[in-house]
Amino acid sequence: MLSSYIVLNGIKLRQVLKTGCFMARTKQFDERQVLVSAMLVFWEKGYEGTSIQDLEQAMGLNRTSIYNAFGNKRAIFNRVMVCYKESVMSALFTELDGAPNIKEGVRRMLNGALDIHFDEDTPGGCLVVLSLLESGQHDEQSQVSMQQTIKNLKHALQTRLSKAKKSGELSKNLDAGSTATTIATTMAGMMVMGKANFTKASLKKTVNQVVSLLD
Amino acid sequence: MLSSYIVLNGIKLRQVLKTGCFMARTKQFDERQVLVSAMLVFWEKGYEGTSIQDLEQAMGLNRTSIYNAFGNKRAIFNRVMVCYKESVMSALFTELDGAPNIKEGVRRMLNGALDIHFDEDTPGGCLVVLSLLESGQHDEQSQVSMQQTIKNLKHALQTRLSKAKKSGELSKNLDAGSTATTIATTMAGMMVMGKANFTKASLKKTVNQVVSLLD
Repeated sequence: MLSSYIVLNGIKLRQVLKTGCFMARTKQFDERQVLVSAMLVFWEKGYEGTSIQDLEQAMGLNRTSIYNAFGNKRAIFNRVMVCYKESVMSALFTELDGAPNIKEGVRRMLNGALDIHFDEDTPGGCLVVLSLLESGQHDEQSQVSMQQTIKNLKHALQTRLSKAKKSGELSKNLDAGSTATTIATTMAGMMVMGKANFTKASLKKTVNQVVSLLD
Repeated sequence: MLSSYIVLNGIKLRQVLKTGCFMARTKQFDERQVLVSAMLVFWEKGYEGTSIQDLEQAMGLNRTSIYNAFGNKRAIFNRVMVCYKESVMSALFTELDGAPNIKEGVRRMLNGALDIHFDEDTPGGCLVVLSLLESGQHDEQSQVSMQQTIKNLKHALQTRLSKAKKSGELSKNLDAGSTATTIATTMAGMMVMGKANFTKASLKKTVNQVVSLLD
């Protein structure tokens, strides 16, 4: 049932963050750089666990400068989420769309998510998944925004699967919507399994099993 | 690729909790009942978000009684995790083992996890998954215990898949270890998708897709 998995070049977060987060560089500091620093704190400690002191230290700015540039902790978090989508999530779609076929694209996208999870530069897991599960600690607007990010992921996958059905690359009997949900579920689940110390190699086998649903 | 999903009787948390958590009833209060109350608070608010005041209120006991009976917040949480494993996780294995065949068993187990997630009596999601993702907020012993719970789930699944291979119920070519990891990944991922407002019906289709890997 499992084909041996191919080794990809791998996504390195450090590279992804250089190209994502399209922020101004016109102020006294590099907005992109300080937002990335804030992102890593929220990613590691969660929204609730992150204090303004943590943000001051990570961003290298005092409270007044942070407030003037970004607003309160909630506002910084919302900017960080935009930055995350524009860098990390966008890198995964680049993997998907750069592949020679849809099956290889889905494999690369899921393996890319593993690359980021196991990247020594990241706190592990996915910021959206981690934040979504901090239920009760986010206002309704942030909660809806995170839910929408996962729904967008599913819809973007569904669009590509439907297109591949039309072009004859995938079977006409494939349920594009359900398969997209399954792929997104796998991506989210692997983030949890990584936190439970499952190895990257064992999760790559799960990627191959899920990709085999496209056969 | 998708067969229409069958409707199960469904697991109701209220029933599960009546049979799980094997605690003494010899004291001035019902240990099982107060631990279940504490469980629901941790489940809803997370470890970090739960205060001693929340526990006092939910358990209907004052701080001194709680401390004398269970110890500090950490100790209560550890007892709650044991209770969760003995009730919720154990109910899922009852679903698995009570089915007429392995394929139906895995389907019932995954659907049972959805039943609990979407049960109106629960805060949603899985306590182990939610707690595991609160990284940095647990001591090493608790962290290892939660990781072990997911590893035990995987191993228990693997044992049943291997047995079904031996009896000829499953193909000899099936990789029992990887398939067990994929099933556990799906279970964890569905908890996240539920938090992202995906419907139970759409996730049941994902269950069917993953079960089809056993064909």
